[in-house]
Amino acid sequence: MKTLQLSPLQKARYEYQPKLPKALQSDLASISVEFGAATEAIADQARLKELFAKTYGKPIASFTSGSNDVSSKLLRVGVILSGGQAPGGHNVIAGIYDGLKKGNPESVLIGFKGGPSGLLEKDYVEITDSFMDEYRNTGGFDMIGSGRTKISTDQQFADSLRVAKELQLNAVVVIGGDDSNTNAALLAEYFIQEGTNIQVIGVPKTIDGDLKNEYIETSFGFDTAVKTYAELIGNIGRDANSAKKYWHFIKLMGRSASHIALECALQTRPNICLISEEIAEKKQTLEQIVNSIADTVVTRSSNGENFGLVLIPEGLIEFIPEMNELIAQLNDLLAKEAAEYEKLSSFEDQTAWVISKLSAASGAVFKELPADIQKQLLMDRDPHGNVQVSRIETEKLLIGMVEKRLVELQKAGSYSGKFSALNHFFGYEGRCAFPSNFDADYCYSLGYTAFLLIAQGLTGYLSSVRNLDKPAAEWQAGGIPLTMMMNMEQRHGSAKPVIRKALVELDGKPFQEFVKHRQIWATQTSYVFPGAIQYYGPAEVCDQPTITLGLERS
Amino acid sequence: MKTLQLSPLQKARYEYQPKLPKALQSDLASISVEFGAATEAIADQARLKELFAKTYGKPIASFTSGSNDVSSKLLRVGVILSGGQAPGGHNVIAGIYDGLKKGNPESVLIGFKGGPSGLLEKDYVEITDSFMDEYRNTGGFDMIGSGRTKISTDQQFADSLRVAKELQLNAVVVIGGDDSNTNAALLAEYFIQEGTNIQVIGVPKTIDGDLKNEYIETSFGFDTAVKTYAELIGNIGRDANSAKKYWHFIKLMGRSASHIALECALQTRPNICLISEEIAEKKQTLEQIVNSIADTVVTRSSNGENFGLVLIPEGLIEFIPEMNELIAQLNDLLAKEAAEYEKLSSFEDQTAWVISKLSAASGAVFKELPADIQKQLLMDRDPHGNVQVSRIETEKLLIGMVEKRLVELQKAGSYSGKFSALNHFFGYEGRCAFPSNFDADYCYSLGYTAFLLIAQGLTGYLSSVRNLDKPAAEWQAGGIPLTMMMNMEQRHGSAKPVIRKALVELDGKPFQEFVKHRQIWATQTSYVFPGAIQYYGPAEVCDQPTITLGLERS
Repeated sequence: MKTLQLSPLQKARYEYQPKLPKALQSDLASISVEFGAATEAIADQARLKELFAKTYGKPIASFTSGSNDVSSKLLRVGVILSGGQAPGGHNVIAGIYDGLKKGNPESVLIGFKGGPSGLLEKDYVEITDSFMDEYRNTGGFDMIGSGRTKISTDQQFADSLRVAKELQLNAVVVIGGDDSNTNAALLAEYFIQEGTNIQVIGVPKTIDGDLKNEYIETSFGFDTAVKTYAELIGNIGRDANSAKKYWHFIKLMGRSASHIALECALQTRPNICLISEEIAEKKQTLEQIVNSIADTVVTRSSNGENFGLVLIPEGLIEFIPEMNELIAQLNDLLAKEAAEYEKLSSFEDQTAWVISKLSAASGAVFKELPADIQKQLLMDRDPHGNVQVSRIETEKLLIGMVEKRLVELQKAGSYSGKFSALNHFFGYEGRCAFPSNFDADYCYSLGYTAFLLIAQGLTGYLSSVRNLDKPAAEWQAGGIPLTMMMNMEQRHGSAKPVIRKALVELDGKPFQEFVKHRQIWATQTSYVFPGAIQYYGPAEVCDQPTITLGLERS
Repeated sequence: MKTLQLSPLQKARYEYQPKLPKALQSDLASISVEFGAATEAIADQARLKELFAKTYGKPIASFTSGSNDVSSKLLRVGVILSGGQAPGGHNVIAGIYDGLKKGNPESVLIGFKGGPSGLLEKDYVEITDSFMDEYRNTGGFDMIGSGRTKISTDQQFADSLRVAKELQLNAVVVIGGDDSNTNAALLAEYFIQEGTNIQVIGVPKTIDGDLKNEYIETSFGFDTAVKTYAELIGNIGRDANSAKKYWHFIKLMGRSASHIALECALQTRPNICLISEEIAEKKQTLEQIVNSIADTVVTRSSNGENFGLVLIPEGLIEFIPEMNELIAQLNDLLAKEAAEYEKLSSFEDQTAWVISKLSAASGAVFKELPADIQKQLLMDRDPHGNVQVSRIETEKLLIGMVEKRLVELQKAGSYSGKFSALNHFFGYEGRCAFPSNFDADYCYSLGYTAFLLIAQGLTGYLSSVRNLDKPAAEWQAGGIPLTMMMNMEQRHGSAKPVIRKALVELDGKPFQEFVKHRQIWATQTSYVFPGAIQYYGPAEVCDQPTITLGLERS
């Protein structure tokens, strides 16, 4: 895509100079690195020490004012964007680029195109000043593209090394989520084991917010994405409160964790927000969830308010134990008995057959689902024959079942309101927004820090910028050994080293804050209207981090 | 709803002082009114002159620097929000309120609650400083609520007059779209015919942009709504161009006219934007539309781009002649032969029966529709038995049919790409956004002007602020006689006086600008990323009117 026309905001954003932590604002030669003690993995230490013989247990690195004699080295670095888009990716690249060029104008940054496959296939572009300038402070990953290829086979590891050597790279930076950074750790180890000095540095990216821990306060992109969704939810809330006739069921991206839904709830105060982790923990059934929503509809209706807002995390279905079981049984059944199933032509015959084959419990769950959801479960399957969970319209499923429940309550005389519901799904709207000032600053700092880690000759580290609830000048930059965040988990039947995914913690402050208020928010309309992300204007409007981050850091 | 918590943006927006046209910035006593010549309706002048014996043919009013001795009159005014929400409604109220209080601190503004029914039922609230201040520069109509009640029966007219008299009102301001302002004209005439001096002033509101003409350059709310949708479309375009794997089909609110889709296309440059008015004019069939989209998919795929953006106006279906005919036949058939239809239990029997009863042409159209759309047409009917056109998921209909067409092309060997499509519908997201600076200024000016018209003793006028492509100081405020914008149209079988709806003009500059570029945009990815509405920062980012307005005024 040749950019022919720029929006006024894009032009204005080109001029934005991201803020850096104080220690990183000085001359490169005036930054020193400090190391802490040796570190340990969060679990399975012995096994991880074996797997990461060369990179395990490194100390945490911090950058402070001081001096160094490595920052002017001539370096050749390759960068990869891995996985789904997140606002700020271009600024990570800008941070690396500016650091490299400031250190030594002869240093080179190349961008691998289309994700990790760009490394495997030696498909890349050398980044120049004018090319970089077209992408500063912009959203999207379109500068070099992204992809979901995993470097996993022996051949792929060998190809990565060959290409890195051919391009005479000193280092590869992998910008990605938990999986991609696990991959970065493996690649770092492999490069050393193969006798090279090629370094690998990770950068924590994901709008889902599930790559975080004691040392990574948030992944980049979460801030902008939730602010974009909160804008829309707030607008819809205001519409609901003005028109007073619709219940809006809003599904939000975030397959594994409910951080996005939770943060949006804290920002906008909807009547209901489902948190998958709580539902799994309490082993709630679909019926319980539906009845609980219906009860809130009834209560609000009796207060004269036949409208409302419900937030639903995208991954909900898989966290409801009985649905998870049903899907597993369906996947199994339709794979094993495909031939018999294929003979059935009418939907009625298919459902009858399926119910007869499922366990009694799963059959009963299936039977209660609205017909269009039954159809999605039977027909919308991926090439492996599995149900495509992400395609299930959970928001419509809940609307259908709540409607049914309300009819029952109406017949029983305990409800006489009107229920008219609309559904929405927000995800793609937020992944490529112009990064908020927070994400623009954070990403640029992460990229700049990644360069500093490379200059220091470190490998197997994740670029880390902390103290993020404070103004950018007070942020602390450094590096966290990737192995420190790992444990062993079962994947496809065998134990693999992985970075542990951060789900919503039910005893954590953000969820507890939500619990403290949700009963009030359910019945008393308390919507907050965040409005569109602002890049200019008062700092309290433009530069605030998320509520989740603020609470977790308090 | 008791507002318990304000977002930082909401607090900051309270401080925003909307800009006024120069003539309105001075003391109220230093504003004079000028009148043009007598006016005529756009058509059916004789009949309209009869119907509006007292209010027909008034001159256009303009406010300029000068003097007057009426602006300090003690006035009692009632205001009504009518119809769907549009950003800026609260600022219209603020403009009226501030004008009234500046003129005479004893003047009173009351807000009728829940739309026109508030007038009929004498359900109102007196607006105070503190109440007003909670809603300045905010979105939504939640300050006093809105509603869709039409004042149409003799009883309703009589009730309106009785309540207005009981409340000792000097004037009623109706903030609404074409229908509501037609109603305002009728009410103005009625009040005079009944021997009172109660005035009625209209204010042009609708995000759809279809209330405009030579004298009303744009309706308020359009600016903010399209900017909100363009933000989302741009974000999705950037995502599509980064991920390079999805076609996004985006339906946009706007039932009668395609102004919203057209403006969003001009702002974001998608690959395809359907314009209902063109489809109707060219009498295109659904098959032609589908084939044309598929052709673009094929061309882009042959360029290696298996992704794209398609914008679809909400009202599309009704503009496709054969679909319009099919829906009319279905409504008729299912009403007349309901008993026979009800006997059929399976979907297969229902479709077979329906096809046998429809005309051959409509039967063929129905047969080609995807099953879920056939189902929506048969099952999703309103209490009168009519198909609920607004509930038809046109975006999914098109995806389904394009998929089918691509399979044919694949079999014929003329397509070998991948087509994976996602659907979106944006409407509610934009109706209650914080008004853009343009809408905040425009609405406040409209409200202030409405007050001036009232002070001048005028009735049957629409508040008008023109020259809107220039900075606010150069705007021109005045009043346009409502009858001037009217003609006679068939409604429910009889000729009624109505304000003519402004559809997209195929020979107008905005559409011609689109036509000039659309072939390039179709095949060469040319997306523009407008980003979120900005309220602070450079004027070229914050204060620009829409492209449609700019072109129409050029």
